[in-house]
Amino acid sequence: MDSRSDSFNRNTKKNDDDDDITQREEALYSVERIFESKEVPSWQNQLTLRAFCVSFILGILFTFIVLKLSLTTGIIPSLNVSAGLLGFFFLKTWTKLLEKSGILKQPFTRQENTVIQTCVVATSGIAFSGGFGSYLFAMSEVAAKQSTEANNAFNIKNPSLGWMIGFLFVVSFLGLFSVVPLRKIMIIDFKLTYPSGTATAHLINSFHTPQGAKLAKKQVKALAKFFSFSFLWGFFQWFFTAGDDCGFASFPTFGLKAYENKFYFDFSATYVGVGMICPYLINISLLLGSILSWGIMWPLIQDRKGHWFPADESPSSLHGLQGYKVFIAIAMILGDGLYNFCKVFGRTLYGLYLQFCSKDEGAVLPVGARPSPPEPSMSFDDQRRTTLFLKDQIPIWVSIVGYVGIAIVSTVTLPHIFHQLKWYHIIVIYVFAPILAFCNAYGCGLTDWSLASTYGKLAIFTIGAWAGASHGGVLAGLAACGVMMNIVSTASDLTQDFKTGYMTLASPRSMFISQIIGTAMGCLISPCVFWLFYKAFPDLGTQGSAYPAPYALVYRNMSIIGVEGFSALPKNCLTLCYIFFIGALVINGIRDLVGKNKAKYIPLPMAMAIPFYLGSYFAIDMCLGSLILFVWTKINKAKADAFGPAVASGLICGDGIWTLPSSILALVGVKPPICMKFLSRNANSRVDSFLNS
Amino acid sequence: MDSRSDSFNRNTKKNDDDDDITQREEALYSVERIFESKEVPSWQNQLTLRAFCVSFILGILFTFIVLKLSLTTGIIPSLNVSAGLLGFFFLKTWTKLLEKSGILKQPFTRQENTVIQTCVVATSGIAFSGGFGSYLFAMSEVAAKQSTEANNAFNIKNPSLGWMIGFLFVVSFLGLFSVVPLRKIMIIDFKLTYPSGTATAHLINSFHTPQGAKLAKKQVKALAKFFSFSFLWGFFQWFFTAGDDCGFASFPTFGLKAYENKFYFDFSATYVGVGMICPYLINISLLLGSILSWGIMWPLIQDRKGHWFPADESPSSLHGLQGYKVFIAIAMILGDGLYNFCKVFGRTLYGLYLQFCSKDEGAVLPVGARPSPPEPSMSFDDQRRTTLFLKDQIPIWVSIVGYVGIAIVSTVTLPHIFHQLKWYHIIVIYVFAPILAFCNAYGCGLTDWSLASTYGKLAIFTIGAWAGASHGGVLAGLAACGVMMNIVSTASDLTQDFKTGYMTLASPRSMFISQIIGTAMGCLISPCVFWLFYKAFPDLGTQGSAYPAPYALVYRNMSIIGVEGFSALPKNCLTLCYIFFIGALVINGIRDLVGKNKAKYIPLPMAMAIPFYLGSYFAIDMCLGSLILFVWTKINKAKADAFGPAVASGLICGDGIWTLPSSILALVGVKPPICMKFLSRNANSRVDSFLNS
Repeated sequence: MDSRSDSFNRNTKKNDDDDDITQREEALYSVERIFESKEVPSWQNQLTLRAFCVSFILGILFTFIVLKLSLTTGIIPSLNVSAGLLGFFFLKTWTKLLEKSGILKQPFTRQENTVIQTCVVATSGIAFSGGFGSYLFAMSEVAAKQSTEANNAFNIKNPSLGWMIGFLFVVSFLGLFSVVPLRKIMIIDFKLTYPSGTATAHLINSFHTPQGAKLAKKQVKALAKFFSFSFLWGFFQWFFTAGDDCGFASFPTFGLKAYENKFYFDFSATYVGVGMICPYLINISLLLGSILSWGIMWPLIQDRKGHWFPADESPSSLHGLQGYKVFIAIAMILGDGLYNFCKVFGRTLYGLYLQFCSKDEGAVLPVGARPSPPEPSMSFDDQRRTTLFLKDQIPIWVSIVGYVGIAIVSTVTLPHIFHQLKWYHIIVIYVFAPILAFCNAYGCGLTDWSLASTYGKLAIFTIGAWAGASHGGVLAGLAACGVMMNIVSTASDLTQDFKTGYMTLASPRSMFISQIIGTAMGCLISPCVFWLFYKAFPDLGTQGSAYPAPYALVYRNMSIIGVEGFSALPKNCLTLCYIFFIGALVINGIRDLVGKNKAKYIPLPMAMAIPFYLGSYFAIDMCLGSLILFVWTKINKAKADAFGPAVASGLICGDGIWTLPSSILALVGVKPPICMKFLSRNANSRVDSFLNS
Repeated sequence: MDSRSDSFNRNTKKNDDDDDITQREEALYSVERIFESKEVPSWQNQLTLRAFCVSFILGILFTFIVLKLSLTTGIIPSLNVSAGLLGFFFLKTWTKLLEKSGILKQPFTRQENTVIQTCVVATSGIAFSGGFGSYLFAMSEVAAKQSTEANNAFNIKNPSLGWMIGFLFVVSFLGLFSVVPLRKIMIIDFKLTYPSGTATAHLINSFHTPQGAKLAKKQVKALAKFFSFSFLWGFFQWFFTAGDDCGFASFPTFGLKAYENKFYFDFSATYVGVGMICPYLINISLLLGSILSWGIMWPLIQDRKGHWFPADESPSSLHGLQGYKVFIAIAMILGDGLYNFCKVFGRTLYGLYLQFCSKDEGAVLPVGARPSPPEPSMSFDDQRRTTLFLKDQIPIWVSIVGYVGIAIVSTVTLPHIFHQLKWYHIIVIYVFAPILAFCNAYGCGLTDWSLASTYGKLAIFTIGAWAGASHGGVLAGLAACGVMMNIVSTASDLTQDFKTGYMTLASPRSMFISQIIGTAMGCLISPCVFWLFYKAFPDLGTQGSAYPAPYALVYRNMSIIGVEGFSALPKNCLTLCYIFFIGALVINGIRDLVGKNKAKYIPLPMAMAIPFYLGSYFAIDMCLGSLILFVWTKINKAKADAFGPAVASGLICGDGIWTLPSSILALVGVKPPICMKFLSRNANSRVDSFLNS
């Protein structure tokens, strides 16, 4: 193996500007070489009681933050990084105290750190996918009263601690089991990036770097520098965000016209960092998708206003332009996801068939567990990580039994909780859910975006329409949305965590158990915290109050439209959906036909579809990240290779941690003092005369 | 000399990060070593006909720009850098064409480039100091009619080509002669930085750098990089400046409260660069002055509103807070200037006395012409520059004869142009003008700010009050302002040019002649161009028209107040002026008493006084520049020393050149499309509801 890593190092292009980075040091570019001296604990030893105590405390903290945010603005940032960082500081203080008093038995390892991070993410993830600010609260009487339609008792279910906990328990573990067989495909075969997961792993690795490694120290320094920069930048931005469309996140970098079509650079350090981690092809695909949708299609469809859809429809209504955005994006994502799912499934069957024919091995190994030997072209890091990732297997029967078992339990239980949801609805969801979970985990791995709520909307539309308005379709749709969101959201979150685990040599088995424990904690903590809010603030959910839960109403309205079925979609929307669905299949087919060398010039439909719905701003951030890395690589490849991931992780993590204090500021009611507003020249002169009068 | 430069190089602290900058290359830090092979032409050969042709064309161009700006917004940027750059491109193209056709006799040297730059600055300087947008047009009937007081015929003098040219010719050369004896004191003895002049010199040097010097190439690359950045940044900023208080220049970096007191970072690349060139002490002094004035004094005085000055006074009135700002700043600047003037004068007399006693030299050499041998501690650059700067002398009798001669001519002529201005007024101005010219040139050398208009205001106040309202004091004040501004503005501009000449080895003699020719061209071009505007736009000067000449009214109103004398100043203003005047003397005395080592911790009164009037924003820019250089020096002293000036010059020059296209955009009437506005949270919600209604 040593000779391999040497050859890897020799491949690194020498740059005359960096004589100080000698060949000896180049060997240190390998993170795992630095950690080589450190023993990796067995998977049982990675799971410590202290880790779960810390996770429990952090889980409660993060649940509070997530719930508060979803009940106020509805926008919830990713808390992966914060979980990793706070987990480190909590347990580091703990172990330091124990070390001083001499009773420390087991040192604090990066694997243990990853276990905490995973557990906290699983716990706080439930607070989001539980839908307390969206689909779940949309069922309540408070939300129903604010809508003109479907506010009869049959379409209402008020929150209550009992059924919420029960509901979460029967749906939240499905995502977990559906994702387990996929982890090898996603992480080892597809080599997906999972930018947030990668960044968290870099952060955790940097915390635990043993003393003495010079380059690693430099990397940690670079990470710390960009971490502080990104954190302070987030802090600085905050001051200018008093009000909507205020602050750097609404900066019309390319003019106001472009801003209206969501073409602007939003100064988000996170997405610049994500762009630095993602491959160039992804970023270019995102940009192409942005131009295709926001640059061409949406303006053209907007011009058909009054013909294709009613001119007086509100911008957020699914009957109008928003309908095209949501459903065309879903069609394209489904096309890509289905293609890849079929490809993987086909290959697996073919592999099984070959194994069956040759009978060269005793046991038929499942997809996610085939210990393929590390490829010779792999770097030392990848070899070591792959070896350890494949060491502790989770047998595929565990996930099949788990999935089917829980599916049966919930098929029986759910109709008792929601009378409007029938057992056959649930079976259909559970048949298709793994495909969608695959799509979401795959898309998230490519671009860092989890589209759980988009899939949830799909469930509202299909199941709601199927149940029909007269049979309580509104509530059925919302309940189906919950089931779906729990599965796909958990799938992407946990594959993200597996990536972190892969890069920190945490055992998949300890990760899996940590996820189960975390999810179980989440199923208890989230409803309790929500109950606290619900009882403490009687006006929860009414517009204009301190906790308006804005998305509850949005989801309810979507469900009301949903029951009307496909006929409710605006004109030509379905045709366009078919075109883009087939387009995604065709592009994928071409990519596979032309071979790897040419495929890198053909965009990925999955990545193209994401900005369809969200807008182009983050694609521009990510392309800027790509550009920075590209220029850096041109100037000094060695340095860019060594420090690029550290800088990117610093950018992502700093912004990520800032969400914590900013959430706390929001919780205690401190509002930013200034609005940085962007007005056209005419609007500005009007405003000036208004303010002076 | 070689051994000296070696010892200098050995002093440069080695940094282990920069093994590639070897001792050999360190020798190349010296600009003049690179140019050593290039012969410096004699001063006569630096003055070429082609240079003056190019200067004439550029002079007309810049006069148009300056006049247009002073008649529209009244804000005129420094055009030093543009002059250097455009001069280079014009003449480079010219010489290249001639070279190709084989008829080039004399190569294009950096000295010739400096001559063009100097000449163009002198020409376009007249367009500013001629006061066509301020004091001169303030005399006109158009301006008088817009004021309620003093609009009788005795206080009016309408523009006419004849008297304007005559007036400019008799006053514009005085500054030139007054500055000549000062140049050695300012540049060699005081080693003042003149940031713009230094930056222009770096730019010109970089254009003419001979091939082959590796470090020089890197420096030129650094300059080019930051030049482009600064230019593009200026361009980007422009888009967001539709309206007052819009754009990055009004960014309330430290909050709205601090912004009101002018504490903010205005994102000006120019002043960050200037801060990198200025010594730390200057920047700290500026900041201290800002805190003392805008942080403490002005808010306290503002609280006395209604007691110390009328509460209903407009913010720009000299009867109100503005009066304190202007006059306290002048008092402090005068105190510092007078102290230094007396010190230099005393030393000169003492030196003459010593020379007279010892009689060791044949001729008594004047102040500005004493060829002191280069000090042994000097770097090679400084040695070579000093030697050449002192080689071609301008005898002091030339400047004395010139000054006295022109003073006599103008004392006789001016009362014929302005009947209200008496000969004794003019003599008093000419007695004190050299001191003020010294002050302005000194202050400009320290901080890059020319306070010509402030000294002009002083003249309005003193001469206007002296002449008295009944004897046409308003017009006398304005005329005196013109005389004063011409002297002090020319003094600072031309000392700035001498610094550029010093750093490009241009002969002071050729510079002086170029300045005379440039000034003469300016005296002809500016009135003609103004006449063109005046005849082409009959509504010139009326508010609301395309050419409102806003400062004309401001100056006339100041003059109307001025005739009321010191009694018109707000309460306690004069007392505060005395305190700060004496304070400046005392601080300077302490600085001289404690010795050089301790003096570097005592702020400079001159630098402290400048933000009194202008605000703190540029002090913050400059401190940021200092901070950047400080951190850079800590990280890598060798690199910071080598590239600091290049980066700073790039920042200054890029922003400087951007003024040219931005001025042209303003000329052709292209307005920026967006306003980046900063509103408090309350104002924002009011504006939002206004815009939505």
